[in-house]
Amino acid sequence: MHDFSIPNLFLLLAVMLIAAKLLGELAERFGQPAVLGELIAGVLLGGSVFAIIPVEGTGAEIIHVLAELGVVLLLFEIGLETDLREMFRVGTASLSVAAVGVVLPFALGFAYWAYLPHAASSETDPTTAAIFVGATLTATSVGITARVLSDLGQMNSEEAKIIIGAAIIDDVLGLVILTVVSGMAAGASVDALSVLRVLAVAVGFLVIAVLVGRFAAPRLFDLVVRMRVRYVLLVFAFAFALALSATAAAVGSALIIGAFAAGLILSGTNQFDTIEHEIRPVASIFAPIFFVSVGASVNLKLLDPSREGALGILGVAATLTALAILGKLAAGWAAPWGKFRRLVVGVGMVPRGEVGLIFADIGRRSGVLNEAVFGAILLTVMATTFVAPPGLKLLFNSSPGRTTKT
Amino acid sequence: MHDFSIPNLFLLLAVMLIAAKLLGELAERFGQPAVLGELIAGVLLGGSVFAIIPVEGTGAEIIHVLAELGVVLLLFEIGLETDLREMFRVGTASLSVAAVGVVLPFALGFAYWAYLPHAASSETDPTTAAIFVGATLTATSVGITARVLSDLGQMNSEEAKIIIGAAIIDDVLGLVILTVVSGMAAGASVDALSVLRVLAVAVGFLVIAVLVGRFAAPRLFDLVVRMRVRYVLLVFAFAFALALSATAAAVGSALIIGAFAAGLILSGTNQFDTIEHEIRPVASIFAPIFFVSVGASVNLKLLDPSREGALGILGVAATLTALAILGKLAAGWAAPWGKFRRLVVGVGMVPRGEVGLIFADIGRRSGVLNEAVFGAILLTVMATTFVAPPGLKLLFNSSPGRTTKT
Repeated sequence: MHDFSIPNLFLLLAVMLIAAKLLGELAERFGQPAVLGELIAGVLLGGSVFAIIPVEGTGAEIIHVLAELGVVLLLFEIGLETDLREMFRVGTASLSVAAVGVVLPFALGFAYWAYLPHAASSETDPTTAAIFVGATLTATSVGITARVLSDLGQMNSEEAKIIIGAAIIDDVLGLVILTVVSGMAAGASVDALSVLRVLAVAVGFLVIAVLVGRFAAPRLFDLVVRMRVRYVLLVFAFAFALALSATAAAVGSALIIGAFAAGLILSGTNQFDTIEHEIRPVASIFAPIFFVSVGASVNLKLLDPSREGALGILGVAATLTALAILGKLAAGWAAPWGKFRRLVVGVGMVPRGEVGLIFADIGRRSGVLNEAVFGAILLTVMATTFVAPPGLKLLFNSSPGRTTKT
Repeated sequence: MHDFSIPNLFLLLAVMLIAAKLLGELAERFGQPAVLGELIAGVLLGGSVFAIIPVEGTGAEIIHVLAELGVVLLLFEIGLETDLREMFRVGTASLSVAAVGVVLPFALGFAYWAYLPHAASSETDPTTAAIFVGATLTATSVGITARVLSDLGQMNSEEAKIIIGAAIIDDVLGLVILTVVSGMAAGASVDALSVLRVLAVAVGFLVIAVLVGRFAAPRLFDLVVRMRVRYVLLVFAFAFALALSATAAAVGSALIIGAFAAGLILSGTNQFDTIEHEIRPVASIFAPIFFVSVGASVNLKLLDPSREGALGILGVAATLTALAILGKLAAGWAAPWGKFRRLVVGVGMVPRGEVGLIFADIGRRSGVLNEAVFGAILLTVMATTFVAPPGLKLLFNSSPGRTTKT
């Protein structure tokens, strides 16, 4: 009860939600996905413009919790809508897309920072800085991509399945990269064994959770459905998603991987229709809080060309953005076979979103990245996040040879 | 990020929700309303037994916010289901019930504490203490009563309408009493003018909000429904409830009065069916967090008769409970006319719940009530809260001459 009051917080939430929906509507009227409007609503309410959303203190932590609840609900819903057999069918394609989409952007970012001349390079440890720059470019924001696909009504398309699969794999790889760069930022020497351990935990969690869950959950929920209290199915499903998210994070994986796994698992129950129907209103209230929060973390002042050294930073940002987009587009062509539009898959992998922000922030706080480089990376994250929604919209609309199945 | 982590918090929420549903189910199997089980789940998870729910720090504040969100959603839902004309029709009955239900318990509590011999009376200021004891007995927990009526499928009964109306009026009067006792606890002399001002604000807010809202909201929501983004109606309705709750609290009324007013207002829109249908899953997830939190604030150790002076406290608690129940039962007979079961209305007004806890806590923290008296009042609040659900259940089931309309 120090720096915040519940009435103020409730008012803030109301403003965030209304702004999200109004700008989402505006985005749709301009032929763009609604999530783009929600991100922009966040930029407007964030520190760059109106500074309504708190950045520290209890109020900020509560908004953060609600935003995490939003992205967990979103990934849970996506998991529920995902057909596991379809996931396996496109699995090889997803795996190749994810692998190339991590390796290539990393290599491009690292090479640019380590070997080519550029502005803003006053780091004490150029190699570590180059690794950080590369690492930031590997991320894919599965939340943003999934919302765009869902906004466009394309969640059942072949491309969407590959993208979602690849984005989830990317998140697993992201955990490994995060461990490595966090270790490096802390000055520790990172050995291959610990990297492998993180990879094993992240993959192992997903595999074991889904295997055990697909066996146990249908039996459990057949019991739950026999209970009489109201909305017992929904509340158990929600609690299950929360518990699996928490477990994922506790064993060293990520909240959203747990949430996605929970959805995948419950999609195998006899009650998944009811669960999906009832969880949607809940997700629809909290997901916008997540997207507005992501938007609020954007610092528009970095775009101001009148700031000292700004042109150099903008140049670096432009180059990094080009590399970031190029690397992910190439990933679209990585799958050895499959009948899908490779450009769509590539564009779908482009948004870095909150994942990229997390990487960059670790680099900044540890001092590996100076303010200028951090700013350039932030601009890159912003550009990739804002370019993908209209890009996907354009591609899905102008598609004579598209291969969708609904 | 000091004393809590998001995974731990999510796990805690999952445990709270599952415990609430399991014990709610158990309560129903024993023929009791589900909310009784949710309160007991809270007692078990609270400090008295397993101490899983944090009582201070950021984690506790976040649980508190989610619980407030729960009770706001609950009152919003009740408002949505309330027919304003029906409210006016039973208005005189509600008003008499509320008035007698405040005056009589206060008088009984005050008289007992000021004029009769009792244990645990070591206060420095006996008159103020007696006023506090009386004030605590005036409360009615509209949340608990409404949930019980809803659990029993009796929200449309004549008695339910009178009870809900009276409980809301009781909350308005409660604000006035709260102001008076807070002022006295702070040592200020409380004049009639400031009391009247609080009353005017609380009543004025409700009247103005509903008058303006019933005119403006249908027009606003006819525009909102023309927007294309998904769940725009639900999100706007939710934001409206949050904003009106916050406004109510800001002008000196209470969050839940604003939430109820928001529901009443939106029940006049053309879209209230959709809103009600979609808000229910959201409320069903958050309302249990509120009831579990109320249960968690109960201190079972006060019931231990082996503690020193415990028998005296138990005796005081028994007397206060008898007075608390007597006063509210008499209120059921207060309405000058009307065809309803007066005993049902009286029992429906009995639970003090979180409102009684708030009064008692102010008294304790200001030093007006010593630990022993506070303990006795807490026991009274617990007893009244736990006795009403089974009481109502019993009355509604064994009712040859009941007057319900559905």
